[in-house]
Amino acid sequence: MSKRSAANGSATPQIPDIVIARLPIYLRALTYLAQDGVKTTTSSHELGRHLGISSAQIRKDLAHFGEFGKQGTGYHIAYLIEQLRQILKLDREWEVAVIGAGYLGHALVHYNGFQHRGFRIRWVFDIDPEVLGRKMNGVTVQHLDDLEATVREKGIQIAIIAVPAAAAQDVADRLIDTGVRSILCYAPISLRVPDDVHIAYSDPVVQLQHMTYYLDPT
Amino acid sequence: MSKRSAANGSATPQIPDIVIARLPIYLRALTYLAQDGVKTTTSSHELGRHLGISSAQIRKDLAHFGEFGKQGTGYHIAYLIEQLRQILKLDREWEVAVIGAGYLGHALVHYNGFQHRGFRIRWVFDIDPEVLGRKMNGVTVQHLDDLEATVREKGIQIAIIAVPAAAAQDVADRLIDTGVRSILCYAPISLRVPDDVHIAYSDPVVQLQHMTYYLDPT
Repeated sequence: MSKRSAANGSATPQIPDIVIARLPIYLRALTYLAQDGVKTTTSSHELGRHLGISSAQIRKDLAHFGEFGKQGTGYHIAYLIEQLRQILKLDREWEVAVIGAGYLGHALVHYNGFQHRGFRIRWVFDIDPEVLGRKMNGVTVQHLDDLEATVREKGIQIAIIAVPAAAAQDVADRLIDTGVRSILCYAPISLRVPDDVHIAYSDPVVQLQHMTYYLDPT
Repeated sequence: MSKRSAANGSATPQIPDIVIARLPIYLRALTYLAQDGVKTTTSSHELGRHLGISSAQIRKDLAHFGEFGKQGTGYHIAYLIEQLRQILKLDREWEVAVIGAGYLGHALVHYNGFQHRGFRIRWVFDIDPEVLGRKMNGVTVQHLDDLEATVREKGIQIAIIAVPAAAAQDVADRLIDTGVRSILCYAPISLRVPDDVHIAYSDPVVQLQHMTYYLDPT
Protein backbone atom coordinates (compact mmCIF):
# COMPACT_ATOMS: atom_id res chain seq x y z
CA MET A 1 0.00 0.00 0.00
CA SER A 2 1.76 3.09 -1.19
CA LYS A 3 1.24 6.48 0.26
CA ARG A 4 3.00 9.81 -0.01
CA SER A 5 5.07 7.88 -2.48
CA ALA A 6 6.42 10.18 -5.11
CA ALA A 7 5.47 13.52 -3.67
CA ASN A 8 8.13 15.17 -5.82
CA GLY A 9 9.00 13.33 -8.98
CA SER A 10 12.19 14.45 -10.61
CA ALA A 11 11.37 13.18 -14.11
CA THR A 12 8.36 14.43 -16.13
CA PRO A 13 6.54 15.66 -13.02
CA GLN A 14 3.42 16.41 -15.03
CA ILE A 15 2.36 12.75 -15.06
CA PRO A 16 0.22 11.98 -12.01
CA ASP A 17 1.79 9.59 -9.53
CA ILE A 18 -1.34 7.46 -9.56
CA VAL A 19 -0.63 6.75 -13.25
CA ILE A 20 2.97 5.78 -12.47
CA ALA A 21 1.68 3.48 -9.74
CA ARG A 22 -0.39 1.53 -12.29
CA LEU A 23 2.46 0.96 -14.76
CA PRO A 24 4.08 -1.86 -12.73
CA ILE A 25 0.68 -3.55 -12.57
CA TYR A 26 0.36 -3.37 -16.35
CA LEU A 27 3.91 -4.64 -16.66
CA ARG A 28 3.15 -7.61 -14.45
CA ALA A 29 0.03 -8.53 -16.39
CA LEU A 30 1.85 -8.21 -19.73
CA THR A 31 4.73 -10.35 -18.47
CA TYR A 32 2.19 -12.94 -17.40
CA LEU A 33 0.62 -12.92 -20.88
CA ALA A 34 4.09 -13.13 -22.48
CA GLN A 35 4.98 -16.16 -20.35
CA ASP A 36 1.78 -17.81 -21.42
CA GLY A 37 3.29 -17.64 -24.88
CA VAL A 38 0.00 -18.09 -26.69
CA LYS A 39 -0.37 -14.54 -27.99
CA THR A 40 1.97 -11.80 -29.19
CA THR A 41 -0.60 -9.01 -28.97
CA THR A 42 -3.20 -7.91 -26.45
CA SER A 43 -5.79 -5.14 -26.12
CA SER A 44 -6.71 -2.61 -23.48
CA HIS A 45 -9.96 -4.58 -23.08
CA GLU A 46 -8.16 -7.85 -22.39
CA LEU A 47 -5.71 -6.20 -20.00
CA GLY A 48 -8.58 -4.40 -18.30
CA ARG A 49 -10.58 -7.59 -17.79
CA HIS A 50 -7.48 -9.23 -16.33
CA LEU A 51 -6.82 -6.37 -13.93
CA GLY A 52 -10.25 -5.02 -13.07
CA ILE A 53 -9.29 -1.63 -14.53
CA SER A 54 -11.33 -0.02 -17.31
CA SER A 55 -9.88 -0.22 -20.82
CA ALA A 56 -10.33 3.56 -21.18
CA GLN A 57 -8.17 4.09 -18.08
CA ILE A 58 -5.43 1.86 -19.47
CA ARG A 59 -5.41 3.66 -22.83
CA LYS A 60 -5.36 7.05 -21.09
CA ASP A 61 -2.52 6.02 -18.78
CA LEU A 62 -0.34 4.69 -21.58
CA ALA A 63 -1.06 7.71 -23.81
CA HIS A 64 0.99 9.82 -21.36
CA PHE A 65 4.09 8.07 -22.68
CA GLY A 66 3.41 7.72 -26.39
CA GLU A 67 1.52 5.72 -28.97
CA PHE A 68 1.88 2.05 -28.10
CA GLY A 69 -1.14 0.41 -29.68
CA LYS A 70 -2.92 0.37 -32.99
CA GLN A 71 -6.66 0.54 -33.49
CA GLY A 72 -7.72 -2.98 -34.42
CA THR A 73 -4.51 -4.84 -33.65
CA GLY A 74 -3.93 -3.66 -30.09
CA TYR A 75 -0.61 -3.72 -28.24
CA HIS A 76 2.39 -5.81 -29.19
CA ILE A 77 3.12 -7.47 -25.84
CA ALA A 78 6.93 -7.75 -26.03
CA TYR A 79 7.30 -4.18 -27.28
CA LEU A 80 5.04 -2.71 -24.60
CA ILE A 81 6.93 -4.66 -21.91
CA GLU A 82 10.22 -3.21 -23.20
CA GLN A 83 8.78 0.32 -23.24
CA LEU A 84 7.36 0.05 -19.72
CA ARG A 85 10.66 -1.29 -18.43
CA GLN A 86 12.43 1.72 -19.92
CA ILE A 87 9.91 4.19 -18.50
CA LEU A 88 10.21 2.63 -15.04
CA LYS A 89 14.03 2.48 -15.34
CA LEU A 90 14.03 -1.29 -15.13
CA ASP A 91 16.35 -1.73 -18.11
CA ARG A 92 19.07 -2.13 -15.49
CA GLU A 93 19.31 -4.06 -12.22
CA TRP A 94 18.81 -2.15 -8.97
CA GLU A 95 20.69 -3.44 -5.96
CA VAL A 96 18.66 -3.44 -2.78
CA ALA A 97 19.51 -3.54 0.92
CA VAL A 98 17.23 -5.33 3.39
CA ILE A 99 17.32 -4.25 7.01
CA GLY A 100 16.19 -7.04 9.30
CA ALA A 101 17.02 -10.73 8.95
CA GLY A 102 14.07 -12.15 10.87
CA TYR A 103 11.30 -14.27 9.34
CA LEU A 104 10.31 -11.47 7.00
CA GLY A 105 13.88 -10.67 5.93
CA HIS A 106 14.31 -14.37 5.27
CA ALA A 107 11.17 -14.49 3.16
CA LEU A 108 12.30 -11.45 1.17
CA VAL A 109 15.80 -12.74 0.50
CA HIS A 110 14.37 -16.05 -0.71
CA TYR A 111 11.52 -14.49 -2.72
CA ASN A 112 12.10 -15.35 -6.36
CA GLY A 113 9.79 -12.61 -7.64
CA PHE A 114 12.72 -10.14 -7.75
CA GLN A 115 14.56 -12.05 -10.46
CA HIS A 116 14.27 -10.64 -13.96
CA ARG A 117 12.10 -7.81 -12.68
CA GLY A 118 14.84 -5.26 -12.07
CA PHE A 119 16.01 -5.94 -8.52
CA ARG A 120 18.56 -7.94 -6.59
CA ILE A 121 18.95 -8.08 -2.84
CA ARG A 122 22.67 -7.58 -2.30
CA TRP A 123 22.89 -6.68 1.38
CA VAL A 124 21.14 -7.78 4.58
CA PHE A 125 21.69 -6.10 7.93
CA ASP A 126 20.70 -7.11 11.45
CA ILE A 127 21.93 -6.84 15.03
CA ASP A 128 21.09 -10.33 16.28
CA PRO A 129 24.33 -12.30 16.97
CA GLU A 130 22.38 -15.47 16.06
CA VAL A 131 22.11 -14.45 12.40
CA LEU A 132 25.20 -12.25 11.87
CA GLY A 133 27.58 -13.78 9.35
CA ARG A 134 25.01 -16.32 8.24
CA LYS A 135 24.49 -16.77 4.49
CA MET A 136 20.94 -16.30 3.27
CA ASN A 137 20.43 -17.20 -0.39
CA GLY A 138 24.02 -16.21 -1.05
CA VAL A 139 23.93 -12.95 0.93
CA THR A 140 25.89 -12.68 4.20
CA VAL A 141 24.08 -10.96 7.08
CA GLN A 142 26.10 -7.90 8.17
CA HIS A 143 25.94 -5.95 11.40
CA LEU A 144 23.77 -2.84 11.35
CA ASP A 145 26.82 -0.87 12.48
CA ASP A 146 28.13 -1.27 8.91
CA LEU A 147 24.97 0.28 7.44
CA GLU A 148 26.14 3.85 6.86
CA ALA A 149 29.54 2.90 5.44
CA THR A 150 28.01 0.35 3.07
CA VAL A 151 25.22 2.60 1.83
CA ARG A 152 27.75 5.37 1.11
CA GLU A 153 30.39 3.15 -0.45
CA LYS A 154 27.98 1.22 -2.68
CA GLY A 155 25.70 4.15 -3.48
CA ILE A 156 22.62 2.20 -2.36
CA GLN A 157 19.42 4.04 -3.36
CA ILE A 158 16.78 1.46 -2.41
CA ALA A 159 16.18 -0.25 0.92
CA ILE A 160 13.54 -2.50 2.45
CA ILE A 161 12.81 -2.10 6.15
CA ALA A 162 11.91 -5.40 7.79
CA VAL A 163 12.62 -4.58 11.43
CA PRO A 164 10.12 -4.29 14.32
CA ALA A 165 8.02 -1.12 14.43
CA ALA A 166 9.95 0.29 17.39
CA ALA A 167 13.21 0.29 15.42
CA ALA A 168 11.86 1.37 12.03
CA GLN A 169 12.09 5.16 12.35
CA ASP A 170 15.70 5.01 13.53
CA VAL A 171 16.66 2.71 10.65
CA ALA A 172 14.83 4.96 8.16
CA ASP A 173 16.65 8.05 9.47
CA ARG A 174 20.01 6.32 9.12
CA LEU A 175 19.23 5.15 5.59
CA ILE A 176 18.06 8.59 4.49
CA ASP A 177 20.99 10.40 6.09
CA THR A 178 23.39 8.33 4.02
CA GLY A 179 21.63 8.67 0.66
CA VAL A 180 18.81 6.12 0.30
CA ARG A 181 15.95 7.69 -1.66
CA SER A 182 13.39 4.85 -1.92
CA ILE A 183 12.15 2.83 1.03
CA LEU A 184 9.71 -0.04 1.19
CA CYS A 185 8.61 -0.38 4.80
CA TYR A 186 7.10 -3.55 6.27
CA ALA A 187 6.92 -2.26 9.82
CA PRO A 188 3.31 -1.43 10.77
CA ILE A 189 3.88 2.28 11.43
CA SER A 190 3.95 5.53 9.45
CA LEU A 191 7.43 6.97 9.12
CA ARG A 192 8.46 10.62 9.00
CA VAL A 193 10.58 11.13 5.88
CA PRO A 194 11.69 14.21 3.92
CA ASP A 195 9.77 15.18 0.78
CA ASP A 196 12.47 13.97 -1.59
CA VAL A 197 12.32 10.41 -0.25
CA HIS A 198 9.79 8.00 -1.69
CA ILE A 199 8.27 5.62 0.77
CA ALA A 200 5.83 2.77 0.26
CA TYR A 201 4.29 0.58 2.93
CA SER A 202 3.48 -3.08 2.80
CA ASP A 203 0.99 -3.86 5.50
CA PRO A 204 -1.23 -6.93 5.11
CA VAL A 205 -3.62 -5.59 7.73
CA VAL A 206 -4.35 -2.43 5.76
CA GLN A 207 -5.16 -4.60 2.75
CA LEU A 208 -7.35 -6.98 4.77
CA GLN A 209 -9.17 -4.08 6.46
CA HIS A 210 -10.08 -2.74 3.03
CA MET A 211 -11.71 -6.05 2.14
CA THR A 212 -13.64 -6.59 5.37
CA TYR A 213 -15.75 -3.56 4.45
CA TYR A 214 -17.38 -5.78 1.85
CA LEU A 215 -17.82 -8.88 4.02
CA ASP A 216 -20.90 -9.87 5.97
CA PRO A 217 -20.07 -10.59 9.58
CA THR A 218 -21.62 -13.92 10.49
CA MET B 1 -1.10 -3.29 -4.04
CA SER B 2 -4.80 -3.79 -4.42
CA LYS B 3 -6.54 -4.20 -7.68
CA ARG B 4 -10.02 -5.27 -8.80
CA SER B 5 -10.59 -5.34 -5.09
CA ALA B 6 -14.15 -4.61 -4.27
CA ALA B 7 -15.75 -4.80 -7.67
CA ASN B 8 -19.16 -5.39 -6.10
CA GLY B 9 -19.58 -3.97 -2.67
CA SER B 10 -22.59 -5.27 -0.81
CA ALA B 11 -22.89 -2.42 1.70
CA THR B 12 -23.44 1.19 0.63
CA PRO B 13 -22.18 0.52 -2.87
CA GLN B 14 -22.34 4.20 -3.78
CA ILE B 15 -19.07 4.94 -2.01
CA PRO B 16 -16.11 4.58 -4.38
CA ASP B 17 -13.78 1.72 -3.58
CA ILE B 18 -10.80 4.08 -3.71
CA VAL B 19 -12.32 5.89 -0.71
CA ILE B 20 -12.75 2.61 1.19
CA ALA B 21 -9.11 1.78 0.41
CA ARG B 22 -7.95 4.93 2.18
CA LEU B 23 -9.92 4.33 5.40
CA PRO B 24 -7.47 1.70 6.76
CA ILE B 25 -4.63 4.15 6.13
CA TYR B 26 -6.45 6.84 8.12
CA LEU B 27 -7.14 4.28 10.82
CA ARG B 28 -3.48 3.35 11.03
CA ALA B 29 -2.36 6.97 11.27
CA LEU B 30 -4.98 7.73 13.93
CA THR B 31 -3.97 4.67 15.94
CA TYR B 32 -0.38 5.85 15.75
CA LEU B 33 -1.39 9.28 17.05
CA ALA B 34 -3.46 7.68 19.81
CA GLN B 35 -0.52 5.52 20.93
CA ASP B 36 1.61 8.62 21.07
CA GLY B 37 -0.82 9.70 23.77
CA VAL B 38 0.09 13.37 23.55
CA LYS B 39 -3.09 14.59 21.87
CA THR B 40 -6.76 13.65 21.97
CA THR B 41 -7.70 15.55 18.79
CA THR B 42 -6.24 15.96 15.34
CA SER B 43 -7.09 17.81 12.13
CA SER B 44 -7.38 16.85 8.48
CA HIS B 45 -4.31 19.03 7.94
CA GLU B 46 -2.23 17.12 10.48
CA LEU B 47 -3.40 13.75 9.17
CA GLY B 48 -2.75 14.89 5.62
CA ARG B 49 0.79 16.01 6.40
CA HIS B 50 1.42 12.67 8.07
CA LEU B 51 0.10 10.69 5.09
CA GLY B 52 0.94 12.80 2.06
CA ILE B 53 -2.78 13.09 1.26
CA SER B 54 -4.46 16.49 0.92
CA SER B 55 -6.58 17.63 3.84
CA ALA B 56 -9.47 18.32 1.41
CA GLN B 57 -9.33 14.69 0.26
CA ILE B 58 -9.45 13.42 3.84
CA ARG B 59 -12.45 15.64 4.71
CA LYS B 60 -14.25 14.57 1.53
CA ASP B 61 -13.57 10.87 2.17
CA LEU B 62 -14.82 11.00 5.74
CA ALA B 63 -17.88 13.06 4.80
CA HIS B 64 -19.23 9.98 2.97
CA PHE B 65 -19.84 8.42 6.38
CA GLY B 66 -21.04 11.31 8.50
CA GLU B 67 -19.92 14.36 10.41
CA PHE B 68 -16.83 13.42 12.40
CA GLY B 69 -15.04 16.69 12.92
CA LYS B 70 -15.78 20.19 14.07
CA GLN B 71 -14.57 23.39 12.47
CA GLY B 72 -11.85 24.69 14.75
CA THR B 73 -11.46 21.67 17.04
CA GLY B 74 -10.91 18.95 14.42
CA TYR B 75 -11.41 15.22 14.98
CA HIS B 76 -11.56 13.50 18.32
CA ILE B 77 -9.00 10.74 17.73
CA ALA B 78 -10.50 7.95 19.86
CA TYR B 79 -14.01 8.57 18.50
CA LEU B 80 -12.88 8.61 14.87
CA ILE B 81 -10.93 5.37 15.43
CA GLU B 82 -14.05 3.75 16.84
CA GLN B 83 -16.17 4.95 13.91
CA LEU B 84 -13.68 3.76 11.29
CA ARG B 85 -13.45 0.37 12.97
CA GLN B 86 -17.24 0.07 12.78
CA ILE B 87 -17.37 1.14 9.14
CA LEU B 88 -14.67 -1.36 8.19
CA LYS B 89 -16.34 -4.09 10.33
CA LEU B 90 -13.34 -4.34 12.61
CA ASP B 91 -15.40 -4.19 15.79
CA ARG B 92 -15.02 -7.99 15.80
CA GLU B 93 -12.10 -10.33 15.18
CA TRP B 94 -11.80 -11.99 11.76
CA GLU B 95 -10.20 -15.41 11.67
CA VAL B 96 -7.82 -15.90 8.79
CA ALA B 97 -6.34 -18.94 7.04
CA VAL B 98 -2.82 -18.83 5.62
CA ILE B 99 -1.95 -21.21 2.80
CA GLY B 100 1.78 -21.89 2.65
CA ALA B 101 4.08 -22.42 5.64
CA GLY B 102 7.36 -21.44 3.97
CA TYR B 103 9.45 -18.41 4.92
CA LEU B 104 6.59 -16.05 4.05
CA GLY B 105 3.93 -18.08 5.89
CA HIS B 106 6.27 -18.11 8.86
CA ALA B 107 6.71 -14.34 8.69
CA LEU B 108 2.95 -13.83 8.49
CA VAL B 109 2.10 -16.11 11.39
CA HIS B 110 4.69 -14.34 13.55
CA TYR B 111 3.77 -10.83 12.39
CA ASN B 112 2.45 -8.95 15.41
CA GLY B 113 0.72 -6.28 13.31
CA PHE B 114 -2.49 -8.36 13.20
CA GLN B 115 -3.08 -8.07 16.94
CA HIS B 116 -5.70 -5.55 18.01
CA ARG B 117 -6.34 -4.63 14.38
CA GLY B 118 -9.18 -7.04 13.66
CA PHE B 119 -7.49 -10.26 12.58
CA ARG B 120 -6.13 -13.50 13.92
CA ILE B 121 -4.41 -16.23 11.93
CA ARG B 122 -6.13 -19.40 13.06
CA TRP B 123 -5.18 -21.92 10.38
CA VAL B 124 -2.05 -22.67 8.33
CA PHE B 125 -1.98 -25.20 5.49
CA ASP B 126 0.89 -26.72 3.56
CA ILE B 127 1.86 -29.98 1.82
CA ASP B 128 5.50 -30.24 2.90
CA PRO B 129 5.94 -33.22 5.30
CA GLU B 130 8.76 -31.24 6.95
CA VAL B 131 6.37 -28.64 8.35
CA LEU B 132 3.11 -30.59 8.74
CA GLY B 133 2.06 -30.86 12.37
CA ARG B 134 4.56 -28.24 13.45
CA LYS B 135 3.36 -25.43 15.73
CA MET B 136 3.94 -21.92 14.46
CA ASN B 137 3.10 -19.22 17.00
CA GLY B 138 0.48 -21.53 18.47
CA VAL B 139 -1.05 -22.63 15.16
CA THR B 140 -0.53 -26.22 13.95
CA VAL B 141 0.30 -26.62 10.25
CA GLN B 142 -2.38 -28.79 8.62
CA HIS B 143 -2.28 -30.68 5.33
CA LEU B 144 -3.75 -28.87 2.34
CA ASP B 145 -6.05 -31.88 1.86
CA ASP B 146 -7.98 -30.59 4.88
CA LEU B 147 -8.51 -27.18 3.28
CA GLU B 148 -12.04 -27.58 1.89
CA ALA B 149 -13.44 -29.31 4.98
CA THR B 150 -11.95 -26.71 7.31
CA VAL B 151 -13.08 -23.69 5.27
CA ARG B 152 -16.64 -25.08 5.14
CA GLU B 153 -16.81 -26.16 8.77
CA LYS B 154 -15.35 -22.95 10.19
CA GLY B 155 -16.99 -20.60 7.69
CA ILE B 156 -13.65 -19.03 6.81
CA GLN B 157 -14.14 -15.90 4.70
CA ILE B 158 -10.58 -14.55 4.53
CA ALA B 159 -7.43 -16.29 3.32
CA ILE B 160 -3.85 -15.32 2.60
CA ILE B 161 -2.07 -17.14 -0.22
CA ALA B 162 1.64 -17.59 0.46
CA VAL B 163 2.42 -20.46 -1.90
CA PRO B 164 4.67 -20.39 -5.01
CA ALA B 165 3.20 -18.75 -8.13
CA ALA B 166 2.69 -22.09 -9.88
CA ALA B 167 0.34 -23.32 -7.13
CA ALA B 168 -1.53 -20.07 -6.44
CA GLN B 169 -4.39 -20.33 -8.95
CA ASP B 170 -5.26 -23.85 -7.84
CA VAL B 171 -5.27 -22.82 -4.18
CA ALA B 172 -7.40 -19.75 -5.00
CA ASP B 173 -9.93 -21.90 -6.90
CA ARG B 174 -10.21 -24.29 -3.98
CA LEU B 175 -10.66 -21.46 -1.48
CA ILE B 176 -13.31 -19.74 -3.57
CA ASP B 177 -15.21 -22.97 -4.31
CA THR B 178 -15.63 -23.53 -0.58
CA GLY B 179 -16.72 -20.03 0.37
CA VAL B 180 -13.75 -17.71 0.88
CA ARG B 181 -14.64 -14.20 -0.31
CA SER B 182 -11.49 -12.16 0.43
CA ILE B 183 -8.00 -13.18 -0.62
CA LEU B 184 -4.68 -11.49 -0.05
CA CYS B 185 -2.22 -12.98 -2.53
CA TYR B 186 1.57 -12.86 -2.09
CA ALA B 187 2.34 -14.99 -5.15
CA PRO B 188 3.71 -12.80 -7.97
CA ILE B 189 0.94 -13.55 -10.48
CA SER B 190 -2.52 -12.24 -11.34
CA LEU B 191 -5.30 -14.64 -10.40
CA ARG B 192 -8.59 -15.22 -12.18
CA VAL B 193 -11.38 -14.83 -9.63
CA PRO B 194 -15.16 -14.32 -9.88
CA ASP B 195 -16.56 -10.80 -9.55
CA ASP B 196 -17.92 -11.40 -6.06
CA VAL B 197 -14.50 -12.26 -4.65
CA HIS B 198 -12.24 -9.48 -3.44
CA ILE B 199 -8.59 -9.95 -4.11
CA ALA B 200 -5.59 -7.84 -3.16
CA TYR B 201 -1.99 -8.45 -4.08
CA SER B 202 1.11 -7.87 -2.03
CA ASP B 203 4.07 -7.71 -4.36
CA PRO B 204 7.19 -5.85 -3.21
CA VAL B 205 8.46 -5.67 -6.77
CA VAL B 206 5.40 -3.75 -7.98
CA GLN B 207 5.98 -1.27 -5.15
CA LEU B 208 9.70 -0.94 -5.88
CA GLN B 209 9.08 -0.53 -9.62
CA HIS B 210 6.80 2.38 -8.85
CA MET B 211 9.61 4.11 -6.96
CA THR B 212 12.40 3.51 -9.47
CA TYR B 213 10.55 5.81 -11.88
CA TYR B 214 11.69 8.68 -9.67
CA LEU B 215 15.30 7.53 -9.18
CA ASP B 216 18.32 8.63 -11.18
CA PRO B 217 20.24 5.65 -12.48
CA THR B 218 23.90 6.19 -11.60
